[in-house]
Amino acid sequence: MNETLPAGAQRATPVQTPISGVLPPVVTPFNGDLSVDAAAFLEICRRLLEDGAHGLAVFGTAGEANSLSLAERMDLLEALIDGGVDPGRLYPGTGLCALPETVALTRQAVAAGCGGVVMLPPFYYKPVTVEGLYRAYSEAIERVGAGTLRVLLDHTPQISGVALTAPLIRRLIAAYPGIVVGIKDSSGDWANTASLLREFPGFAIFQGSESLMTRAAALGAAGCISATLNVNPGGVRALYDALRSNASDAIELQGHASEIRGLITGYPLLPAVKAVVAARFGRPGIARVRPPLEPLGEAATRELLAALDRAAARP
Amino acid sequence: MNETLPAGAQRATPVQTPISGVLPPVVTPFNGDLSVDAAAFLEICRRLLEDGAHGLAVFGTAGEANSLSLAERMDLLEALIDGGVDPGRLYPGTGLCALPETVALTRQAVAAGCGGVVMLPPFYYKPVTVEGLYRAYSEAIERVGAGTLRVLLDHTPQISGVALTAPLIRRLIAAYPGIVVGIKDSSGDWANTASLLREFPGFAIFQGSESLMTRAAALGAAGCISATLNVNPGGVRALYDALRSNASDAIELQGHASEIRGLITGYPLLPAVKAVVAARFGRPGIARVRPPLEPLGEAATRELLAALDRAAARP
Repeated sequence: MNETLPAGAQRATPVQTPISGVLPPVVTPFNGDLSVDAAAFLEICRRLLEDGAHGLAVFGTAGEANSLSLAERMDLLEALIDGGVDPGRLYPGTGLCALPETVALTRQAVAAGCGGVVMLPPFYYKPVTVEGLYRAYSEAIERVGAGTLRVLLDHTPQISGVALTAPLIRRLIAAYPGIVVGIKDSSGDWANTASLLREFPGFAIFQGSESLMTRAAALGAAGCISATLNVNPGGVRALYDALRSNASDAIELQGHASEIRGLITGYPLLPAVKAVVAARFGRPGIARVRPPLEPLGEAATRELLAALDRAAARP
Repeated sequence: MNETLPAGAQRATPVQTPISGVLPPVVTPFNGDLSVDAAAFLEICRRLLEDGAHGLAVFGTAGEANSLSLAERMDLLEALIDGGVDPGRLYPGTGLCALPETVALTRQAVAAGCGGVVMLPPFYYKPVTVEGLYRAYSEAIERVGAGTLRVLLDHTPQISGVALTAPLIRRLIAAYPGIVVGIKDSSGDWANTASLLREFPGFAIFQGSESLMTRAAALGAAGCISATLNVNPGGVRALYDALRSNASDAIELQGHASEIRGLITGYPLLPAVKAVVAARFGRPGIARVRPPLEPLGEAATRELLAALDRAAARP
């Protein structure tokens, strides 16, 4: 099977998956004292939904969720829902190192009626086995004990240090059908995504880069969860729709989305994404990051914004 | 300079460091439902102190601290002190991914009068820079804002994924003299430990393996924080004392401590340590681990215990 489609190939085969669409992993803005700016977060979330996001993968790696305390995450989810965001469109990250905390966050998401959760494996101890990771997910799911729970596994091995392999996924799907419904593959390894798409049809497989949308859609991917969706939600939504309807402008939309992503990934990813969102909202404070990350800095920000402007102005 | 001392060399040069000694990173026992067994933890802590430990590096990597919730850690520290353990002999791990949580744990330790804290850097986001790590430690120390705070940095790169380098240590010592007082080097890389010992005399440098005690003592190391101290606290304390007094039995004690460690490190380290502690206390439950770790299993446990018995019986 040839996954590397030639340019112009239109082979999108939409598959019905339990969760699908363009789900930005929303950046989390901080005040000057590095406390969470909940009002700005709500505003960013609303704007992403208006701009075409199907849902929001809040509290992901791109949201610096692992730099937030448990209490901050719980308060922020509550603030979003109190602020009028439809919980059914929220997919919060809930996987932490400590089982009781993973359970607490996941229970909150289920009770709030979230569309699902995106669950990292415990990411401190290494090396780990398939059996150990199976136990980690299994204990969390059993303790939450809710038939309405929908879990997307979170495969981000280059940061978490822990890979989720096909044997693990196979076991989890067999043990928790209808609950473990998908995976976000942020490995950046297309061979891995393609192999998962072939082995697990109907499983909701999200690629972690919109540059792979056309290739992944052709193999039945569920959608995209990518840091750069914070910057280009509308463009990627248009691409998603074009691929689902086999529209002729899909190639052009793919090229544009890939170019924007390419410009940003030339810089440290999360600081660069925040710098662009800050400029878009006219609020420099959004560019702040919590340590150990560093903000992008003024010169690089100017350079990146100028490059994005040039790309936008091109016919 | 030749760090690889020939057998028989007695070149111990005790250096006065702000914190020193044999500090076991205590294992954390769990009940059948994986909740923390606080009573057994207190018993293990007391026994380690009776057996010769100078202090206890509770809530470290070997204590599965990153599988504990924030609330569990805070409750457990309180339980230890309420149970009569001298807080001045406690060195809890307090470094988490989220700054507010690192600050909360560190404040608790300072308020309780702990001898110091052992602080991992935030360990989720990577890659990180010296500047980003400096900001992480600096923000934590400034927010705790206590002149009585004593920080041992925690360098465990093979698990945390984040290395603490000499340029970072240099900056932290310069900015926080008397507060950033030492480091635990659990890298297993003797060249790194030796280089730190040469560059930072008077800084409390703990090696992460008692197999390196003689070599490290000769270069002025402060002591040892090693998972296998849970199994052999008395033997390593005797070695520590022998090295400080240039006693003639140091070579034999080093050989015995290294052998015990060697036998255990042939197995997955933390599960093996817990299996041995469980046998020593006659409480099989202590062998339980939280996922993603797996318990050692019966056959391996029998094999390991038999090997330790044979080593103990040898003249």
